[in-house]
Amino acid sequence: MAARLTAVEDYKDLLDKYDTWLFDCDGVLWNGDNVVDGAVEALDLLRSRKKRIIFVTNNASKSRRTYKKTFDKLHVEAQVDEIFGSAYAAAVYLSSVIKLPRHKKVYVIGMAGLEEELRDEGINFLGGTDPSDNTVAPFSLSSFTLDPDVAAVLCGLDTSINYTKLCKAFQYLTRNPGCLFLATNEDSTFPIDGGLLPGAGALSAPLRFSVGRDPLSIGKPASTMLDCIKAKHNFDPKRTIMVGDRLNTDILFGKNSSLSTLLVLTGITQESEISGPDPSPIIPDYVTQSIGDFRVAL
Amino acid sequence: MAARLTAVEDYKDLLDKYDTWLFDCDGVLWNGDNVVDGAVEALDLLRSRKKRIIFVTNNASKSRRTYKKTFDKLHVEAQVDEIFGSAYAAAVYLSSVIKLPRHKKVYVIGMAGLEEELRDEGINFLGGTDPSDNTVAPFSLSSFTLDPDVAAVLCGLDTSINYTKLCKAFQYLTRNPGCLFLATNEDSTFPIDGGLLPGAGALSAPLRFSVGRDPLSIGKPASTMLDCIKAKHNFDPKRTIMVGDRLNTDILFGKNSSLSTLLVLTGITQESEISGPDPSPIIPDYVTQSIGDFRVAL
Repeated sequence: MAARLTAVEDYKDLLDKYDTWLFDCDGVLWNGDNVVDGAVEALDLLRSRKKRIIFVTNNASKSRRTYKKTFDKLHVEAQVDEIFGSAYAAAVYLSSVIKLPRHKKVYVIGMAGLEEELRDEGINFLGGTDPSDNTVAPFSLSSFTLDPDVAAVLCGLDTSINYTKLCKAFQYLTRNPGCLFLATNEDSTFPIDGGLLPGAGALSAPLRFSVGRDPLSIGKPASTMLDCIKAKHNFDPKRTIMVGDRLNTDILFGKNSSLSTLLVLTGITQESEISGPDPSPIIPDYVTQSIGDFRVAL
Repeated sequence: MAARLTAVEDYKDLLDKYDTWLFDCDGVLWNGDNVVDGAVEALDLLRSRKKRIIFVTNNASKSRRTYKKTFDKLHVEAQVDEIFGSAYAAAVYLSSVIKLPRHKKVYVIGMAGLEEELRDEGINFLGGTDPSDNTVAPFSLSSFTLDPDVAAVLCGLDTSINYTKLCKAFQYLTRNPGCLFLATNEDSTFPIDGGLLPGAGALSAPLRFSVGRDPLSIGKPASTMLDCIKAKHNFDPKRTIMVGDRLNTDILFGKNSSLSTLLVLTGITQESEISGPDPSPIIPDYVTQSIGDFRVAL
């Protein structure tokens, strides 16, 4: 059972035990345009204690630079190199985890933010926002030339997904020997104002089905995300805690990565899912109502 | 174990036992532009014995009228009403199996051939080839109005697949109460000159993944296809045989539909898959090398 943080000492103990604090953002620090009450003070407290802070998000359409604008708009302090989106993590996976040879290329189903991160990590790519691949015109296999240097297909959220991109990715995955199949994340949907839309996981599904292979997913809950963070930051996983609002992404990511986990109830997960008659099998180490609760340790 | 047809009597017995002959086309009657040797004579033989012939194909991009042009080009005799493509079958499923009320509509991911069949069966639809849904421009949920009369999403092969179509279909499936989720077929790929491309099953995969529901598939191997054929033709399933070249579509369809089955080896399935050391669990009732073998019974 998860330990419920209540007393001042509980919060102080956590501050003593963990040097590195990984945060999911939406549902933890803010909800849409509303900053969670006390979140800024809690982050300030961690910074004043010299804790390392890393923001870990599955957002694959934005680069870290673009995602930082959300922090700025909401007046939540963050540095670009504290932000780990799944687009950046995918680029780091290629550049620093598997060390893709410089002359190799990646075929991208994804948007400008993903391209920006790949470019920054020195990864050559095709597809993405290339106008010739962003069309609903018929795809012709006979006028397509397979680039033998494409060693991976990387699939993220792409609101310009179309048959040409799917066909090209399919050809690389089935005809280029050893071609890797990567997905930024497997989120089935993502929330926008007024509802939900199909997420990055839905956009890799046609390839998964037609090729008959599952992609290696980079984002939460896969521990691959931690491998990518480790490639850029030096820290002791035993003294690291993942703070999130979703059991099946954030908390499962922490567990898959052998990190401690703290669930907050300001987002998706309801109290009943952890303490009700039919609780989730994914059990966080700690639970508190809100990240703002840490203010008691000020 | 499948019975191997060899003697003249074997072929004559089958001609006596079955009144209705269902045929897959590609791999059975022809391969690409090449008619299987003896196929025309075999069909003529069946016609001379007053057998009912029905061509059962999973092709979902062509209407029966357009598909008949393939027969005409190859000089294989066929009537439009002998052809059951999965596009037509889907239209028949809506009009005659579930009898969709006239004022209800279908949101279509699919091409002109599917629309033609729906129109012929009197089914109202949205999406499909509508230019406003065939775009790679961003989709905006706030400028989208849900049509409350949409009672089904139907997904077939659509080489203009895009995010707008996926988002609209997703909204109908998740927000219109009781909205049906139908797929013309679940083929993961389809062959074209020079290779394979992702098939209709791959294009329903994003919805399957994001909505968390499997579509009802109309085409082979689903027995739904037989329900649709029965809605238009009167025949005795006990005196009906399905002839095909693929174990996991044609032969499985026959088995799922309690029909007798005849495998030919002029297409996908190799001899080793039925008689080798690790045979398929899908066992046809009969096997012959080619449909042309029936000429011995002339």
